[in-house]
Amino acid sequence: MVMTEEAFDVVVVGSCMTDLVSQATRLPKEGETIHGHKFFIGFGGKGANQCIQAARLGAKTAMVCKVGKDFFGDNYLQNFKDNGIHTEFVGQTSVAATGAASIMVNDAGQNAIVIVAGANLVLGSEELQQALPAIRRAKVLVCQLEISPGTSLRALRMAQENNELLMGWSVTSVEEAGRTGRELLKRGCGAAIITLGPQGCVVLAAQEPSSPAHHVPTTAVKAVDTTGAGDSFIGALAFYVAHYPTMPLKEMARRANQVAGVSVQTVGTQTSYPSKKDLPADLF
Amino acid sequence: MVMTEEAFDVVVVGSCMTDLVSQATRLPKEGETIHGHKFFIGFGGKGANQCIQAARLGAKTAMVCKVGKDFFGDNYLQNFKDNGIHTEFVGQTSVAATGAASIMVNDAGQNAIVIVAGANLVLGSEELQQALPAIRRAKVLVCQLEISPGTSLRALRMAQENNELLMGWSVTSVEEAGRTGRELLKRGCGAAIITLGPQGCVVLAAQEPSSPAHHVPTTAVKAVDTTGAGDSFIGALAFYVAHYPTMPLKEMARRANQVAGVSVQTVGTQTSYPSKKDLPADLF
Repeated sequence: MVMTEEAFDVVVVGSCMTDLVSQATRLPKEGETIHGHKFFIGFGGKGANQCIQAARLGAKTAMVCKVGKDFFGDNYLQNFKDNGIHTEFVGQTSVAATGAASIMVNDAGQNAIVIVAGANLVLGSEELQQALPAIRRAKVLVCQLEISPGTSLRALRMAQENNELLMGWSVTSVEEAGRTGRELLKRGCGAAIITLGPQGCVVLAAQEPSSPAHHVPTTAVKAVDTTGAGDSFIGALAFYVAHYPTMPLKEMARRANQVAGVSVQTVGTQTSYPSKKDLPADLF
Repeated sequence: MVMTEEAFDVVVVGSCMTDLVSQATRLPKEGETIHGHKFFIGFGGKGANQCIQAARLGAKTAMVCKVGKDFFGDNYLQNFKDNGIHTEFVGQTSVAATGAASIMVNDAGQNAIVIVAGANLVLGSEELQQALPAIRRAKVLVCQLEISPGTSLRALRMAQENNELLMGWSVTSVEEAGRTGRELLKRGCGAAIITLGPQGCVVLAAQEPSSPAHHVPTTAVKAVDTTGAGDSFIGALAFYVAHYPTMPLKEMARRANQVAGVSVQTVGTQTSYPSKKDLPADLF
């Protein structure tokens, strides 16, 4: 067990996936073999995506996750290092392969995806225990639901004395978002943010019971690829929570929406995430 | 340009593919993301498969193909070396990625496949020219249709003075196979073999005009995975043509069927191909 003395801005306990993307004119039917025109490999997984976005904005980040003892795992470890993420808590296992998402995309942009979580499901209490000092002292802990729910819950409990619980699910209107958010506050959340794509998001905080649902609209942009936009938003939000703790949550959400808005204007997942130097100064 | 002094038993000019296999209870529909239970990477591609089977039976083999200057390409090169295949004519290109077959398989064994040929389509005259001495002197040249048809044709022309043209397409009955085979002979083939899975195959040779279609039945086996069985057959046939040039083609086909029959009793493509030591002595 290695004890770390560093205090991180953002610690992410979550998933890593290798995206294996095949592009073809159309998707194959059952029993069919078709020829596609492009194949590429990308870095994905909600946890890793969010960590990368927070790091690119300047947050001091650590990733707690599990990859396989294989080429994709080695490669992902290097990707974290290339993005300045602390990798002491990135474990490699030989009992399961690095998580993989097999993605087939047709020319209309529709896809069919099979996710095999693999090593992500092996992340458990032992790894959390090793990362405990980092989790306890982190300004922000971010979890998702692509690893064992029990592991996410345990991580959140470890950190609960000084962190907020972030939750999200998709609803289609501002009104529905408000209703959903109030339900989350009732269930004990300190704050809730429901993202609505081009409609921005709805922010609720338990400390403001008088006016709980704020709609935060966003600037219209020409989206070319929305893959990973939600993760860009969460990663940016984690950055703002860590760096500007006194900023109103609404303002953090507005800025995080701006960051995610930049990411949808370029093709790719992590490749589309902007760094601090690519963004207007008034976001910092 | 490197001139080789070695004469090979079998030279394969053909394809290499990395198989990316995701197994799930069912296949995803358009727009759907589902969770699978297993992901694995395998070596595939008709050309490489056939070369591996011939090498495992003891043929001195060379592969003429193109892979990407990437991890999958490096890995495939090592796979050829591990199987004792001569790799001087395995080129690596940085203009295209190693061929990839994205394969989704459901629990009933049905699949949906997207093949992106990538580097395979870059194999052209220049590479053939480098391999010319090896192609000219090879006992058997084997081609398929997973690279540019022009390249396959050019390779066959290079070798035509001392080699047979092997062709195959699938038909469902022994009678249809006979009819198809006679058509191939009419179009100029010296010999034709039409494989029929569990029904064995039909062999025709132009030198025997009196009785051109021989049905060669095969022994019944319990098949667990027929993937790559046709390539096992072709690779084995190439081995017999190279090692027992005076053996009647019917007998070669019967033995190649036995080899392929062993391969279908184990899961996997190249992993299921038997070596000489795994087979009964009367096949050699």
